[in-house]
Amino acid sequence: MDKFFSPSAVAVIGASPREGSLGGQIITNLRYGYPGKIYPVNPNHKEIQTLPAYASVAEIPGPVDLAIVIVPAPAVCDALEACGAKGIRRVIIESAGFAETGPEGRALQERCLAVARKQGIRIWGPNCMGLVDVPRKFFFTFMHPNIYKDGLISGRISMVVQSGMLSAGFLADLMSERAVGIAKACSIGNKIDIDECDVLEYLIQDEETDAIALYLESIVRGRRFLMLASRCAKPIVLLKGGKSSAGAKAALSHTSSLAGNARLQDSLLQLAGVTIARDFQQMMEVARALAMIGKTPPRCRTAILTFSGGAGILSCDLLEAQGLQVADLSPSTKEELAKVFPEWLPASNPVDMFPAFALNGAVATYDGAFRAVVKDPKVDVLFLHFFVGLYPNYDRLKLFKELADREGKVLILWVIGRRDALRDFKREAQEASIPAHGELFRAVECLAYASRYAPSRKSPALIGKRPAGGLSDRAATLLAREPGRVWDECASKKLLKALGIAVVKEKIVGSQAEALAAAKRLGFPVVLKGLVEGGVHKTEAGLVMLNLASPALLKQSFAVLKKRLRGAGRILIQRQIPSDYELIAGVVRDAQFGPCVMFGLGGIFAELQKDVVFAPAPLSTATAKALIGRISGHKLLSGFRGQAPLDLRSMADILTALGRLAASRPDIDAIDINPLAVYRGKPVAVDATVILREL
Amino acid sequence: MDKFFSPSAVAVIGASPREGSLGGQIITNLRYGYPGKIYPVNPNHKEIQTLPAYASVAEIPGPVDLAIVIVPAPAVCDALEACGAKGIRRVIIESAGFAETGPEGRALQERCLAVARKQGIRIWGPNCMGLVDVPRKFFFTFMHPNIYKDGLISGRISMVVQSGMLSAGFLADLMSERAVGIAKACSIGNKIDIDECDVLEYLIQDEETDAIALYLESIVRGRRFLMLASRCAKPIVLLKGGKSSAGAKAALSHTSSLAGNARLQDSLLQLAGVTIARDFQQMMEVARALAMIGKTPPRCRTAILTFSGGAGILSCDLLEAQGLQVADLSPSTKEELAKVFPEWLPASNPVDMFPAFALNGAVATYDGAFRAVVKDPKVDVLFLHFFVGLYPNYDRLKLFKELADREGKVLILWVIGRRDALRDFKREAQEASIPAHGELFRAVECLAYASRYAPSRKSPALIGKRPAGGLSDRAATLLAREPGRVWDECASKKLLKALGIAVVKEKIVGSQAEALAAAKRLGFPVVLKGLVEGGVHKTEAGLVMLNLASPALLKQSFAVLKKRLRGAGRILIQRQIPSDYELIAGVVRDAQFGPCVMFGLGGIFAELQKDVVFAPAPLSTATAKALIGRISGHKLLSGFRGQAPLDLRSMADILTALGRLAASRPDIDAIDINPLAVYRGKPVAVDATVILREL
Repeated sequence: MDKFFSPSAVAVIGASPREGSLGGQIITNLRYGYPGKIYPVNPNHKEIQTLPAYASVAEIPGPVDLAIVIVPAPAVCDALEACGAKGIRRVIIESAGFAETGPEGRALQERCLAVARKQGIRIWGPNCMGLVDVPRKFFFTFMHPNIYKDGLISGRISMVVQSGMLSAGFLADLMSERAVGIAKACSIGNKIDIDECDVLEYLIQDEETDAIALYLESIVRGRRFLMLASRCAKPIVLLKGGKSSAGAKAALSHTSSLAGNARLQDSLLQLAGVTIARDFQQMMEVARALAMIGKTPPRCRTAILTFSGGAGILSCDLLEAQGLQVADLSPSTKEELAKVFPEWLPASNPVDMFPAFALNGAVATYDGAFRAVVKDPKVDVLFLHFFVGLYPNYDRLKLFKELADREGKVLILWVIGRRDALRDFKREAQEASIPAHGELFRAVECLAYASRYAPSRKSPALIGKRPAGGLSDRAATLLAREPGRVWDECASKKLLKALGIAVVKEKIVGSQAEALAAAKRLGFPVVLKGLVEGGVHKTEAGLVMLNLASPALLKQSFAVLKKRLRGAGRILIQRQIPSDYELIAGVVRDAQFGPCVMFGLGGIFAELQKDVVFAPAPLSTATAKALIGRISGHKLLSGFRGQAPLDLRSMADILTALGRLAASRPDIDAIDINPLAVYRGKPVAVDATVILREL
Repeated sequence: MDKFFSPSAVAVIGASPREGSLGGQIITNLRYGYPGKIYPVNPNHKEIQTLPAYASVAEIPGPVDLAIVIVPAPAVCDALEACGAKGIRRVIIESAGFAETGPEGRALQERCLAVARKQGIRIWGPNCMGLVDVPRKFFFTFMHPNIYKDGLISGRISMVVQSGMLSAGFLADLMSERAVGIAKACSIGNKIDIDECDVLEYLIQDEETDAIALYLESIVRGRRFLMLASRCAKPIVLLKGGKSSAGAKAALSHTSSLAGNARLQDSLLQLAGVTIARDFQQMMEVARALAMIGKTPPRCRTAILTFSGGAGILSCDLLEAQGLQVADLSPSTKEELAKVFPEWLPASNPVDMFPAFALNGAVATYDGAFRAVVKDPKVDVLFLHFFVGLYPNYDRLKLFKELADREGKVLILWVIGRRDALRDFKREAQEASIPAHGELFRAVECLAYASRYAPSRKSPALIGKRPAGGLSDRAATLLAREPGRVWDECASKKLLKALGIAVVKEKIVGSQAEALAAAKRLGFPVVLKGLVEGGVHKTEAGLVMLNLASPALLKQSFAVLKKRLRGAGRILIQRQIPSDYELIAGVVRDAQFGPCVMFGLGGIFAELQKDVVFAPAPLSTATAKALIGRISGHKLLSGFRGQAPLDLRSMADILTALGRLAASRPDIDAIDINPLAVYRGKPVAVDATVILREL
């Protein structure tokens, strides 16, 4: 990959002398900062922008590390052949007209890839804007030179985007409006060869990159991406496009429909330590905050230094809403503050400095208040508010940062004011490596991300080893017997039982007499269910009768159920087991991420709230336990309102058993256990569906 | 109020010739745009900024409508006396040093108010920044003149803020960074006389105001505010500060603790048609969008015209996440689009225009695509993306707006790019009355607010009339008997029954034998509960035994419970009633909003999810029904997974009965019905607590 980012000579195939043309802009951009040899290739010109031009790649005198191709799509294959002959092994294809245009373009793309493979060439693109290295001023791209007309802001955040146009517009916006400093910007387009995993791997070891922000519409090698992310010590922030595309297998299994596209991916990525963003600029502000702050101390006790009582109050509201703590200042800090404050002003958090401005001037007040608070052992984070453009600007951000670093404290800024002063202030903050945000909510949100950020090296090994043993004989036999594609709950629970999962006591009954006898053995109250082949939504179909507490009720219900079944299907009788709450567990197979295990809140709330999480299968017991703690409603599991806490070991065993099965049997398409009833902490499978697939 | 906003002459008591002083800045600000008479009052100067100055108010030659006071706090009372003598009936006190500084200041404030009352003076403030009228360039404030140095942007949104400093910084930021145009900005400070209700009432009828944005830390007259809001035809957007201050009566009742400060207020305000914001700038962007858009058609079918495939995809994701619809374009629109698009490019929504730029140029492409989509009968909203500062700017926003208005379509913009071009573009959008946002998420969020916005004139009468009849004799008798402050569930449910609310069948039992006899009458399974005086958290205390299905289990459980009670308390036996799900209903009394009725999801989820809503008591049946539909989990109530839908009439009757009781009996502090079990659509009170208060 290094040759893409640091070539010693670059050929531009399709260079043009025409101003405003893409082939012309690439040359302009290269000349702006790239110090190596630039070879324009164009058969119709001898010179382009004062550089000697070559009729073909073959005529270039010296060695070439990288070619940038901008000729029309149909000419790209030939260009690749020529590159191969010349010994060029890295090519960025910026031309469009490939898979994005339909089947013909897709075929053309395949042919290009075949040529590249044959010639040993690595391809970046096609249909991309190439790459930009801001600190070194390398612009290997056709983007409009106006992008850097307002100046560039170097930083230590690298970005990877799938969309071309976005990376250009976005760079201009980020640098001119938000003063977010960038390291490398990589537009990877159709990614027929080099994909997000390759670039991610490069950026993870890149010394100029402190955080990685990605906008992706697909993750080609899902497992590889998870592996890279889970071992990465730098913050990774991902914005995933295309969440709303309808999930493939909606109706058949709850697990599949709950997975959707987005929920499963987000959950897996978060488990691997990836931070999920929801918008472009937000992604960059979050990445910058994580790069500059890293992880906050766990309690995130925040002191607010403000010029506005209202902004202070609102900061408290926003901090508490995000589960962060408003710091309780130490008595010694309050004494220090009292020295710079007017007598009547209470020295408490938020620290409202405005009334003291008249006494000491704004700068001295900030200074005094900052020095008092930064030393407070009960403060982890200083959230400073600034208001610029009315009075002279504060110019001690570097000093503040030094003092904070010395005390091991985190700094984050909110700033409002007049345009030009804002821009200057934000640049100063960028240089001092302090995140500065224009909205209180965004600043607090970034702090919350930092408080949750866990450098994932420390998280349990994400993907378990392939299970050593194999399935039990009993499970293998059941699978070999294979009662169809969609198993009814009775068959499904037999398989679960063979995996060591506790299931409800039940029996298939053929007559009222059999049902009565079974009910006596199981104990009242009981449940009757009508099982129909391929039918999974029994409740909606009126085929579940709960709370049958007496023989009379049982007999009557049996008759009704029999009638509803109209001779098809079987009748199952179960003990009605008590439950404190219901969970859901299962298996789902994803095209990008492979077999995954699901866990979440069950029953009707599974569908109302969709509080479910996923892990790649197989999974270790440690990952299973971590997964259980990741649902939003985890409070429910730890002994809520006098209930017994969930038996974590039993629950983890269920998840690891499901993971082993999913990983070892590619014919398992999905498994639902819903509900998994929990009573006195013990989970028991009440209903389940196993779905197989053709291999 | 009109005299505050449009005085024909203004006196400034505490005017100063010193540059940078507050008394000097007021004069500078008045001279900037105010065309009426300005009378500086200062005993030490004959002239201030070329204006003749007066030693006292009495010496001013002509009549004066408004005085602005900026003398030190201890001198304010005398100034008010002088104003009274001169016949000035409107005074803005901008001086600080009152209640915000402690008890002495509070006493001073009370004295000022007494003087004002005596003299018939209305006071605005103290401790405020006064008011600004941007279109007329009236600055009745001491804020720094740099605020308007970059120029002003007039608009039709008026704001009311409690915090002084914020209004100045905020105005500068809004106008210079975000290009949000303002009508009137009102800083009301300690609001000892004029409060948010007075200003709101004025702005509701103000012809220059299309939307009202408020930042408030308290709402002094809660009921009055609700009434004004619920009758207001203009959008009201409120940001409430101080949500995190601990609710007063946390532990005793679920209803009270669920109410908190914020949840109850937000819920009541939303019911009255107020839009709740979460941050300053967001509040203004939302207010601007509502002012410019009003309400979107209910389906909000949105077409996205973009220069970036990625931004188009992400827009779909964000729209769907907010419950809005991505429009399905008509065939005729697609045909029109095909005319401006390259052959290979599918004409679908999102409309990715970038590939057509090369064919037609950006401006012609936008134009053609816009004209095609705006006419589509299957499109309600056009979400346009712009990218400015690289190529020449689009300059047809006014034309787009005219075309959209003609077709009855909504326009909203997302724009990124270079600083200066952005500013120009945003101003152009402001002039064309189209909301332009810098982040996709914010634009979509504003659209979502607009889709939910209901001009509240059309909502059912918010506050019911005082109940005509009164309580039933039975209820009155029970209340007269008053078994202590916190009633146990048995006593509480007797009161509910007297209100006509269905309650579970139950009986107090003294012995195992009595329990067995009762169980036989009630039918197994049963529940045993230990009732202890003042104890409301029975479950946590292990005093609830569910699912007792047999006489043996009942006897054993009775013995255990007896032991746990240690001789104190009583034992209650209930039928264990089946339930599809659990709700919660109740009454809570709020200091600002009076007695309120609560409704929400119950059981353990009431505490996990806190999905509860509130209405002022008493409430009409229509309001009760509307309230029921406002919980997030309302899907559960309309026949989820084959269940019977909630009997709306029964549920509404419960809420109106609670409302009548709360409104007619001020001694009721709180009522909890939790859970209110629903089986086959019918709600039945299973557990309840009534809490009285001393009057």
